[in-house]
Amino acid sequence: MKIDNSPARGMRDLLPADVTVRDHVLESIVAVYQRFGYQRIETPALEDINRLQSGDGADNEKLVYQVLRRGLPAEVPGGTLVRDLVDLGLRYDLTVPLTRFYGHNHAVLPSPFRSLQVGPVWRAERPQKGRYRQFHQCDIDMIGEASVLAEAELIEATSGALATIGLTGTTIRLCDRRFWSALAADIGVPPEGQPAFFITLDKLDKIGWDGVRAELTELGLTAGQVADVELKIRSLEGLPAGQMAGALAEAVPGLADSVIEDLVTTGTSLDRLAESRKLNWAFDPTLVRGMGYYTGQIFEIIHPDVSGSLAGGGRYDKLIGKSLGRDVPACGFAIGFERLMDLMVRRPSRDAVAVLVEPDVPVPDALEVARELRSAVAPAAPSGAARVVETVRRSGKFGAQLTRLEAAGFSGFVLVSMQDGAVVRGDLRELGGSAEA
Amino acid sequence: MKIDNSPARGMRDLLPADVTVRDHVLESIVAVYQRFGYQRIETPALEDINRLQSGDGADNEKLVYQVLRRGLPAEVPGGTLVRDLVDLGLRYDLTVPLTRFYGHNHAVLPSPFRSLQVGPVWRAERPQKGRYRQFHQCDIDMIGEASVLAEAELIEATSGALATIGLTGTTIRLCDRRFWSALAADIGVPPEGQPAFFITLDKLDKIGWDGVRAELTELGLTAGQVADVELKIRSLEGLPAGQMAGALAEAVPGLADSVIEDLVTTGTSLDRLAESRKLNWAFDPTLVRGMGYYTGQIFEIIHPDVSGSLAGGGRYDKLIGKSLGRDVPACGFAIGFERLMDLMVRRPSRDAVAVLVEPDVPVPDALEVARELRSAVAPAAPSGAARVVETVRRSGKFGAQLTRLEAAGFSGFVLVSMQDGAVVRGDLRELGGSAEA
Repeated sequence: MKIDNSPARGMRDLLPADVTVRDHVLESIVAVYQRFGYQRIETPALEDINRLQSGDGADNEKLVYQVLRRGLPAEVPGGTLVRDLVDLGLRYDLTVPLTRFYGHNHAVLPSPFRSLQVGPVWRAERPQKGRYRQFHQCDIDMIGEASVLAEAELIEATSGALATIGLTGTTIRLCDRRFWSALAADIGVPPEGQPAFFITLDKLDKIGWDGVRAELTELGLTAGQVADVELKIRSLEGLPAGQMAGALAEAVPGLADSVIEDLVTTGTSLDRLAESRKLNWAFDPTLVRGMGYYTGQIFEIIHPDVSGSLAGGGRYDKLIGKSLGRDVPACGFAIGFERLMDLMVRRPSRDAVAVLVEPDVPVPDALEVARELRSAVAPAAPSGAARVVETVRRSGKFGAQLTRLEAAGFSGFVLVSMQDGAVVRGDLRELGGSAEA
Repeated sequence: MKIDNSPARGMRDLLPADVTVRDHVLESIVAVYQRFGYQRIETPALEDINRLQSGDGADNEKLVYQVLRRGLPAEVPGGTLVRDLVDLGLRYDLTVPLTRFYGHNHAVLPSPFRSLQVGPVWRAERPQKGRYRQFHQCDIDMIGEASVLAEAELIEATSGALATIGLTGTTIRLCDRRFWSALAADIGVPPEGQPAFFITLDKLDKIGWDGVRAELTELGLTAGQVADVELKIRSLEGLPAGQMAGALAEAVPGLADSVIEDLVTTGTSLDRLAESRKLNWAFDPTLVRGMGYYTGQIFEIIHPDVSGSLAGGGRYDKLIGKSLGRDVPACGFAIGFERLMDLMVRRPSRDAVAVLVEPDVPVPDALEVARELRSAVAPAAPSGAARVVETVRRSGKFGAQLTRLEAAGFSGFVLVSMQDGAVVRGDLRELGGSAEA
């Protein structure tokens, strides 16, 4: 009988090479974030199902893996509602758990609190290439900072984190939820029509102005309104920080001065950052972002080789209040790990020495040679990790086994054999050094 | 209205200090294991429910968090079985997923394959002090090695991992499942009575010989059988490797020579290890261990300050076969993380510098000072991580804020203020250095 050993549908196993890349990326990013003062916290994977399906998570709430209550009878009585059978669910992001965490632990946390989270999240999405039902997110959040110091620092830290793993050619996109509301109001789109209006404009990079005009007309906008939208948005695309104030005030007269001032401050910070680091950023009047809980600036980082964004975030000043009972300003930025890993080149082989043991060598002796070697062999580089010393049984033809060892990433070997009843340990010999010999 | 922000029942949030300890322990252990050639893999948290409840996991199978199928109708028809509503579950250990992983990926893995796994597992146990429903395990397994090279290396690596985080006073306990079967047969306990017999002897360190004698009598053993058990076990306690062969053959004549030889080899390896490292080990004829899937040597590491074991493992030569369709020898050792963390002292404060920003300093300038400092400040120790540079708003009385910063783990600060419309950056001043001044 053939047994199916595939991982659960839409999920995947990580082989050693995958974990090596993932951990390298993870450790590099975490090190950058920690230098800004972000501190790691961790919450359980399971949360109360009502918290996960409270309405803030938009479509993600439909994708929650729901967990059955414990201690149910074997058979369900007729008329039972499925939602009465469940009490917990697997988190679909790290922001909802963070707000609960802050509500529970705020008394022992500094203010503002710089949170750093790394962990898996689960969404039962339709499986497709490059998308998994379990994937990792890396979030930084600043809780308790009302000014755009939060936005500007989060963007600087995240763009620094991506730079540190060698990602170049990224672009930061910046917009504001309040710009959207003001624009829609200025155009004359009623509040109830705004979500559909936003969704259409969000598609601009995919369907172009022809497509957007057609969809806006379908939504009931007049030809004049559609032309007005296009004119305003075109006038705002890719504005330098120095021209943002004037252009925004002209295009969207209903926009509050404080919103413009905040956008200019973030833009100026990014200009200043760009001076010291190769960096692209743009005010993008078509950036919308899905989550319903954003209240101010929103931003993402994109890369030409990746559809969608590498990282996305924004300000959510009203979300903590739902857990804590009083509002606390908050802003966050999340990196999607899987997309990042797809961009990374696999790292070279590990630095490992094989202790090659003939079959007649007693186990205690084989282990002792490996142990001595492990404490004697210096790292290849002064700053490098200690060298791996792995015990391997001699088998098959000698040359063929050396070839296999080299292919498996070993850089050297020590042969251990028996001669006249005594254990003989050979010298450390490098593998694949034929060019040097 | 008071909102309950507690984590899900029986689970816990990890604060920054907790994660720091956890990561320090984790990284130290992983580094030791990697030096032996163990390579990290990762599997999804969710597994097929039938795999999690196949009978190999003993009592753990009753503790599985079960996940509802997606796309169910809102109301359940009468007579529906609960088990027909679920298709996935959260893993209760890392061994069951590993056997599936090996079945799925063995073609691209070396043989033997040294696996290293770290990750959360879930068990819906009755909540109690020091026990959590989500907890971390760290497992190493050697798959494809039939000899006790596997056992001896796993024990050496794990005792080395515990030593590297500063744990002293641990003891390794060694026994063998086949010893148990042979002992029971020699005494005259029928196969169906053996599980209860083992459970009773496993309690020896808790209930003593008086308790064990009483329970064995209740199980139906004659006074002669009970005396025989006590005599045999007492003759085998704490045997040095050099005396194991004779004592085992005398006490349990039905024990196969190969089992004795294997125990002597592992014992000799541990003797040899003890010469180079402060280490205690003992053959323990009362060590049973719960999992049903063990087939050979079993072992654990205990510590006087911890009830139960810090790490446990053994050989399971028949488990991979259930996934792969053919048997592959395998042996593993799992460290329980939470118990380890409870033994660790909290680490000292982080090495952080505060960029203390007066309220009137523009955000772009504040961030720029922090950025410059971040690239200028050297690590405190040559091998240390880069120093944290965190932007903090000036607020309240100056002296009081410095005291708060010091309490929060900052070791220095730079004041940024405005004078005559220009940004003024103060010198880096150390905190808490009054003794030095």
